[in-house]
Amino acid sequence: MSAVVSLPLIGAAALRARAASRGLRTLPTDVKDAALAAMADALVQRTDEILAANAEDVSAAAAEGTPESVLDRLRLDAGRVAGVAGALRELVALPDPVGDVVRGSRLPNGLQLRQVRVPFGVVGIVYEARPNVTVDAAGLCLKSGNAALLRGSASAFRTNTALVAVLTEAAEKAGLPAGSVELLPAERASVGELLSARGFVDVVIPRGGASLIQRVVMEAKVPVIETGVGNCHVYVDASADPAMAEAIVLNSKTHRVSVCNSAETLLVHRDFPALPRLLAALGQAGVTMHGDDAVRAAEGSVVPATDEDWAAEYLSMDMAVRVVDDLPAALEHIAQWGSGHTEAIVADSARAIADFTAGVDAAAVMVNASTRFTDGGEFGFGAEIGISTQKLHARGPLGLPELTSTTYVVTGAGHTR
Amino acid sequence: MSAVVSLPLIGAAALRARAASRGLRTLPTDVKDAALAAMADALVQRTDEILAANAEDVSAAAAEGTPESVLDRLRLDAGRVAGVAGALRELVALPDPVGDVVRGSRLPNGLQLRQVRVPFGVVGIVYEARPNVTVDAAGLCLKSGNAALLRGSASAFRTNTALVAVLTEAAEKAGLPAGSVELLPAERASVGELLSARGFVDVVIPRGGASLIQRVVMEAKVPVIETGVGNCHVYVDASADPAMAEAIVLNSKTHRVSVCNSAETLLVHRDFPALPRLLAALGQAGVTMHGDDAVRAAEGSVVPATDEDWAAEYLSMDMAVRVVDDLPAALEHIAQWGSGHTEAIVADSARAIADFTAGVDAAAVMVNASTRFTDGGEFGFGAEIGISTQKLHARGPLGLPELTSTTYVVTGAGHTR
Repeated sequence: MSAVVSLPLIGAAALRARAASRGLRTLPTDVKDAALAAMADALVQRTDEILAANAEDVSAAAAEGTPESVLDRLRLDAGRVAGVAGALRELVALPDPVGDVVRGSRLPNGLQLRQVRVPFGVVGIVYEARPNVTVDAAGLCLKSGNAALLRGSASAFRTNTALVAVLTEAAEKAGLPAGSVELLPAERASVGELLSARGFVDVVIPRGGASLIQRVVMEAKVPVIETGVGNCHVYVDASADPAMAEAIVLNSKTHRVSVCNSAETLLVHRDFPALPRLLAALGQAGVTMHGDDAVRAAEGSVVPATDEDWAAEYLSMDMAVRVVDDLPAALEHIAQWGSGHTEAIVADSARAIADFTAGVDAAAVMVNASTRFTDGGEFGFGAEIGISTQKLHARGPLGLPELTSTTYVVTGAGHTR
Repeated sequence: MSAVVSLPLIGAAALRARAASRGLRTLPTDVKDAALAAMADALVQRTDEILAANAEDVSAAAAEGTPESVLDRLRLDAGRVAGVAGALRELVALPDPVGDVVRGSRLPNGLQLRQVRVPFGVVGIVYEARPNVTVDAAGLCLKSGNAALLRGSASAFRTNTALVAVLTEAAEKAGLPAGSVELLPAERASVGELLSARGFVDVVIPRGGASLIQRVVMEAKVPVIETGVGNCHVYVDASADPAMAEAIVLNSKTHRVSVCNSAETLLVHRDFPALPRLLAALGQAGVTMHGDDAVRAAEGSVVPATDEDWAAEYLSMDMAVRVVDDLPAALEHIAQWGSGHTEAIVADSARAIADFTAGVDAAAVMVNASTRFTDGGEFGFGAEIGISTQKLHARGPLGLPELTSTTYVVTGAGHTR
């Protein structure tokens, strides 16, 4: 594939990754698994030099006045390094998708048709401060036979450089091609180069907040898999069991507020009999509710909701609450404001459950279960690189099979048309 | 999904399609099939008004000096209208992918997990002069539960308007929502609007030549599935049976030269014993060969090849020919110049076949079979909207299942984390 693009910052790394991808394509699973295990061991053995580099990043960020919440995401300690090493070892246990036959048949003319999973080739990951993504992304890409082009944040550049040095030394010693994992320069322009590198990178996956994802989507000339923004709703039907509704709403909102599969908006059917009790329980749990007039009439502590509340991915102990006339009104609200991540219904009516499931357009629909279950680990798929909220290629948890493409292999005996 | 984009030309049609898509999502297969059959009947019954509109397009194009080959693609007659009607009837017989359970399991905590096929929603198609695409694309989109936004060429606008009028009247009478098929204005700017219509269109598929595809890919802010450019190679190994090699090369090159799965370059191992005979057969079939020095030494009529020949998708009775030292050199050539469509090997060596199959990165690999077999109909998948040459979502023939996404439906009994 000939491509004419100018890549002063990332060109050399992209060429190394492209070359490595041709070797990775056909690498046996046991070689990849041995490399992952060696990478995990090396991270633990060389924890000191990783933490030394990380300390420099953290103190530089602190000197710039970076808030403590961001510093915490940037900071590593021996336990966190052991944690990412453990994640690599878990990848060893997962099945290798490469070579799986997705479908196959013998055609009427005798041709043998097989659709076989193959690696994408080169996968670009753009992400923010957390250095654990460097290790997670490298591991997922390698296990699925892809070379990785990693573009982390400038604030973590020393840490990422140390991590990639440790990973690549161990990987190459274990037989992986040089260039299998490349850390890109942290200059702002390197993202733009990655997003325009047609012929060099097969897909770019952004991992981060809404503004990062928006930039990647608007700027990219290469294929992109969008991840992550979750404005998830819980709809409580008139037929819902009040205790079940309370448990699911509380869990969806408060179990872990900073993640994309936490709930942000509660929609309640006007005939649900236990609205005051549900709102009181949310208030007691420390949730600040932003509601419409009907909600405010039922619970005095609720502050008025605006359109910004219906649109918000709070990632905090805030929740928008609305009373709806019926299930179609709930579906209308979700169609207008939802981000296509996870929508939940609590109901005992089979008709309501069927209508909600058919009418919602999202990566996941939860029926009488918490929104927090949308997760590759919870689904039994193992590690994930994110949750896709788009419809193309992969929707929902992005695990190892979602990091592959396919090739049709057609075998004949001199067949012509 | 809130989206702030300005769509003066296509906004009204896009809103109608978005509304229609919510009804199409849950429409039973028998309703969709009845509509497709009614659309086919209506096309045949109203052939006269379609041909009248087409005659105006053709004479306007002829007056502008449009070449006869383009006029031929634009021109309809009763037989061609009957042909597209027949294609709609064939769709009735194909299975509806919507609702298929791709995978399902019971999780250890008792949650029931199902991954279910759902329509994309709204599919945009950008295409060139052939009006048959209007009918094919509308039919494929509707059968897979999607609303269609069709952007054909200005030269076929009267024809497309007549076709869509016939199709939508029949479809709505059969119970499909208004807005299920929308023809977009033919102004040049309407393509740009379609490509930026985030939140209104879920995927855009270009159907046409390399320059159209390039424009779409570079400009799109919405997800795109690339189709079509085919610089396909046939590699003849040293172990190939000479008669089989001749039959496959001739069929791949000459069976139909204007299509993306015809072969453009022949690579021959230097130890293949019957090169002169193979080249003579191509010459006798009327193929103009562009070759390197080794090829020219074996056959006097061969003209010198340049890099442009290795890159060319001729779509004509021309073929680039190169002698390679070994199979890795053939793979290297294909990696540099191929478009990722179809690559064929003719060989009797199992080792060579395995190395070629593993080493080629393309939508399809043909082993001892003509490149012409890469086709949804030949693969037994039925109608296709194109051949995807990209790696994301779908690679190879784009049939009905490839026009869908999936949703995870997770059913619990009050499950929380």
